[in-house]
Amino acid sequence: MKATQLRLAARPVGEPKDADFDVVTFDLPALSEGEVLLRVIYLSLDPYMRGRMSAAKSYAASVEIGEVMVGGTVCEVIESRNPRFAAGELVLSYSGWQSHAVSDGRGLRKLDPGHAPISTAVGVLGMPGFTAYAGLLHIGKPKPGETVVVAAATGPVGSAVGQIAKLRGACAVGIAGGPEKCAALLDEFGFDAAVDHRSPGFDAELAAAVPDGVDVYFENVGGPVTEAVMRRLNTFARMPVCGLVSQYNLTEAPPGPDRLPGFFRQVLTKSLTVRGFIQTEFVAEHHDEFLREMSGWVRDGSVRYRQDVVAGLTNAPEAFRGLLAGRNFGKLLVRVSEDPTAAGSGEGGD
Amino acid sequence: MKATQLRLAARPVGEPKDADFDVVTFDLPALSEGEVLLRVIYLSLDPYMRGRMSAAKSYAASVEIGEVMVGGTVCEVIESRNPRFAAGELVLSYSGWQSHAVSDGRGLRKLDPGHAPISTAVGVLGMPGFTAYAGLLHIGKPKPGETVVVAAATGPVGSAVGQIAKLRGACAVGIAGGPEKCAALLDEFGFDAAVDHRSPGFDAELAAAVPDGVDVYFENVGGPVTEAVMRRLNTFARMPVCGLVSQYNLTEAPPGPDRLPGFFRQVLTKSLTVRGFIQTEFVAEHHDEFLREMSGWVRDGSVRYRQDVVAGLTNAPEAFRGLLAGRNFGKLLVRVSEDPTAAGSGEGGD
Repeated sequence: MKATQLRLAARPVGEPKDADFDVVTFDLPALSEGEVLLRVIYLSLDPYMRGRMSAAKSYAASVEIGEVMVGGTVCEVIESRNPRFAAGELVLSYSGWQSHAVSDGRGLRKLDPGHAPISTAVGVLGMPGFTAYAGLLHIGKPKPGETVVVAAATGPVGSAVGQIAKLRGACAVGIAGGPEKCAALLDEFGFDAAVDHRSPGFDAELAAAVPDGVDVYFENVGGPVTEAVMRRLNTFARMPVCGLVSQYNLTEAPPGPDRLPGFFRQVLTKSLTVRGFIQTEFVAEHHDEFLREMSGWVRDGSVRYRQDVVAGLTNAPEAFRGLLAGRNFGKLLVRVSEDPTAAGSGEGGD
Repeated sequence: MKATQLRLAARPVGEPKDADFDVVTFDLPALSEGEVLLRVIYLSLDPYMRGRMSAAKSYAASVEIGEVMVGGTVCEVIESRNPRFAAGELVLSYSGWQSHAVSDGRGLRKLDPGHAPISTAVGVLGMPGFTAYAGLLHIGKPKPGETVVVAAATGPVGSAVGQIAKLRGACAVGIAGGPEKCAALLDEFGFDAAVDHRSPGFDAELAAAVPDGVDVYFENVGGPVTEAVMRRLNTFARMPVCGLVSQYNLTEAPPGPDRLPGFFRQVLTKSLTVRGFIQTEFVAEHHDEFLREMSGWVRDGSVRYRQDVVAGLTNAPEAFRGLLAGRNFGKLLVRVSEDPTAAGSGEGGD
């Protein structure tokens, strides 16, 4: 059987180009005892992948040149020589940018399509949802009546942050790019206010949306949005930092002025807490509670999610560029092959 | 009786000049019922005062033009119409840059010269010591075997940070300006290593002093020292921020490149905690425990302190400029009038 992989061909400089990936097609080897063959249905595209493409030291190892790009996936077991798995079962795995994967079964988690749509295992009930949950509740710690601001707010992390903030009695203000996304924040996700960072009046509109200042700024974008929000932070505000999507393609420090002294001045004069985190830090202590709470919220409709599905593995590089530029609208997934649990298979948001 | 005050005459631009203060001499009014007359013995000079000279919003109100500069003081009661105080008693007060003060008794704390030298009430047993204690133990939270780095390390905050870190089983590395101060860190304060930030090889010398990286960086200076230490921070490092003395005289954002994106990248990839604080936040919960522990440590010699005493109230502006430039060597005090408890009255370190 033929399989396709996208391998890292070169370390991207700035925005990743198609030529930074090799598309390789090859014959799958026969399974050994204990192995399963997976067909990738959904590949999750997430901003952290930009870091994996770089050689710079980060919290996780870089993908080496010639290796398959990493990524969370939802797969179907199509052949099994492992007694724990049967053909036809659906699993969450970390198979990366490829059409098929051979696994010894370690790290696979079975998914029940009756419980929730299988794609949510890499979205609202997966890594992005847990990033929102852990960072907001265990670093941001919003109190009832406080104001929580999040950017990239229609994305899988941002939309969960705002909705969980509301469930905890806080006021949720979302920042997104363009009127369509801002409308979704209000109508679909129930934010208290939405601010368009592309608006020429962004700064004043943000100020109007947070009349009592900002107590928690959930940071996942960086850049000018961060600077604007920081001016509105209250004393003792908390800033969980889970991502910096606006700056992942930076190739060098931007020109001045140097904003670092001003940033530290704010940290000092407002007694701010700025805390970087990766969700893995919280898994042992909080992942069970997350799955329980979040599944309940998704089931009863108190947490909604939006997906942006792109068809075809080879479209992953272009879709990923769009993700870094904010062109996706909801959780970005590549549908690598047919979803056997889906009623239809149309593209776009659900 | 004549009294002298230094009043803020103008908001300093950059380094405070003599002309930014008015020296005013006037006749003290008679006391009303309930009041005491204080003679200021020691005026504490501390970096935070630069913020009070500015109009910019901070954690405390600015000193208004024409008002006496604020500051912690050790005083003698020389006349009393308050039954709680008798002439000759020594008190800690917040009387500011003046030779005498009239008080209604609120906020005065009696000092026992048999307990500790009275000047320590504005030093190792006062605000600077408590800043070190609270920030290190309740934000930095060093574990035995971890590495704690502090700059301005011969100052009252830095020297206490290093010594408390040692008492908690951590490794203490101090940064100071010049070989004399570095020698004092090792010989007088018992740091494990000392690094001279004026050395051309500073960066490599710092690296050699922290072979296991840095777990706690107690930030009180800002600037290039911070940037060098940040490169050595370990995953999950903590950074209590109590001051930024190197940048208080900045009049605008320095030229680029803009280091803020690189800073946030470090916060994210190393899961750092950066936490600004003012010691007042911790007073209710921890000041009693501080006084008990720190008094014991000072008495048994496990925490030492160094004082830099300048004679004469009108020398306060020049001494304060020296403080911001790092020219003091130990806790900077102005001896405004004779210390009745001191054996001699020579200048300089103790």
